[in-house]
Amino acid sequence: MNGIFITLEGPDGSGKTTVGTRLAERLEEAGIQFVKTREPGGSKISDVVREIFLNDLDSRMDAKTEALLIAGARRQHVVELIRPALAEGKLVLCDRFIDSSLAYQGVGRDIGVDEVLKINQFAVETTMPDVTYYLDVPADVGLARIAANKGREVNRLDMEDVTFHNKVQTGYETVRDMFPERIEIIDATRTIEEIVADIFGRIKSRLG
Amino acid sequence: MNGIFITLEGPDGSGKTTVGTRLAERLEEAGIQFVKTREPGGSKISDVVREIFLNDLDSRMDAKTEALLIAGARRQHVVELIRPALAEGKLVLCDRFIDSSLAYQGVGRDIGVDEVLKINQFAVETTMPDVTYYLDVPADVGLARIAANKGREVNRLDMEDVTFHNKVQTGYETVRDMFPERIEIIDATRTIEEIVADIFGRIKSRLG
Repeated sequence: MNGIFITLEGPDGSGKTTVGTRLAERLEEAGIQFVKTREPGGSKISDVVREIFLNDLDSRMDAKTEALLIAGARRQHVVELIRPALAEGKLVLCDRFIDSSLAYQGVGRDIGVDEVLKINQFAVETTMPDVTYYLDVPADVGLARIAANKGREVNRLDMEDVTFHNKVQTGYETVRDMFPERIEIIDATRTIEEIVADIFGRIKSRLG
Repeated sequence: MNGIFITLEGPDGSGKTTVGTRLAERLEEAGIQFVKTREPGGSKISDVVREIFLNDLDSRMDAKTEALLIAGARRQHVVELIRPALAEGKLVLCDRFIDSSLAYQGVGRDIGVDEVLKINQFAVETTMPDVTYYLDVPADVGLARIAANKGREVNRLDMEDVTFHNKVQTGYETVRDMFPERIEIIDATRTIEEIVADIFGRIKSRLG
């Protein structure tokens, strides 16, 4: 039997990473077999790409370069980790996936959603998430959370400005309109506990 | 005035790298302004991808991963080095470019030429070579030369078998049929001196 492929999406500051960690604890407690992973990353090759991407070797990485490298890392992640786990009947919980590329590169960096979708379809083929939980926060709430969170890993995206974050937000709206049956919108202005309980409940009823 | 973009192509063992080096010497002597570069590589980001590619971190790199990473490296190479050099009116001499991907990934690794062409068009847009010199050798001659050449850098492609080399050869034939006006076929069974003289003559008459 095939497992279930779940992705978490949302702009920076939506609480995605914390929610993912807590959600994993709940799954563990409930004795549900799962694999937790993230993008970019999830394989040795993908981790090298993650390094290139987050540290941006010389701050001149072109938007299309970024889109292609991320899609390449995603391909390896799908082939090496996601598909084998699903084939073993496991639940796969992935922090960011294709929708992040559509929102960040497609809209945030102006390549166009359709162009980015095409190269990602080349990469993932039919391996699309069964369900995506989108952590919905207004752009200003997200930005305020990032600023407040001093302990956060400093990476290139943090240096992008408010305009970029607003574009990503618009990008996610477009993506949600494109995949209304896959993407479930989670009110992420609530406490982490409330968000986790909400998503955990949805996963439980999905598992039946 | 725009420069001229020249690529060298051919299967392993076609003598491409040596020809490129000697050709550069001839251009230098003739006082022709040029930039010599190669793929994968040509920018800091692309060199990291080259490392991933040639050393193949764990020998499990998927063919589509390879195609996407190479296309990403190519994009950065085009934006950072090739376009600026052409804009300065320089001649750009590049060892391998888009045709290598079509032959090696498209045919050699079975992705399909059209699929690989699409992601590469995303990467290079209109920056295609003005002319490509294809070093033509029968597959068995190429293989014999590789074997004889003990001093050659050991990389993953060398470990691929004769079948793969034959597929790449077929791939290049397809590519030559797709772009007959751009690709000029150079008989590479001759001596290096003869090949270099032939290509140098073609470049000279192209420069007018």
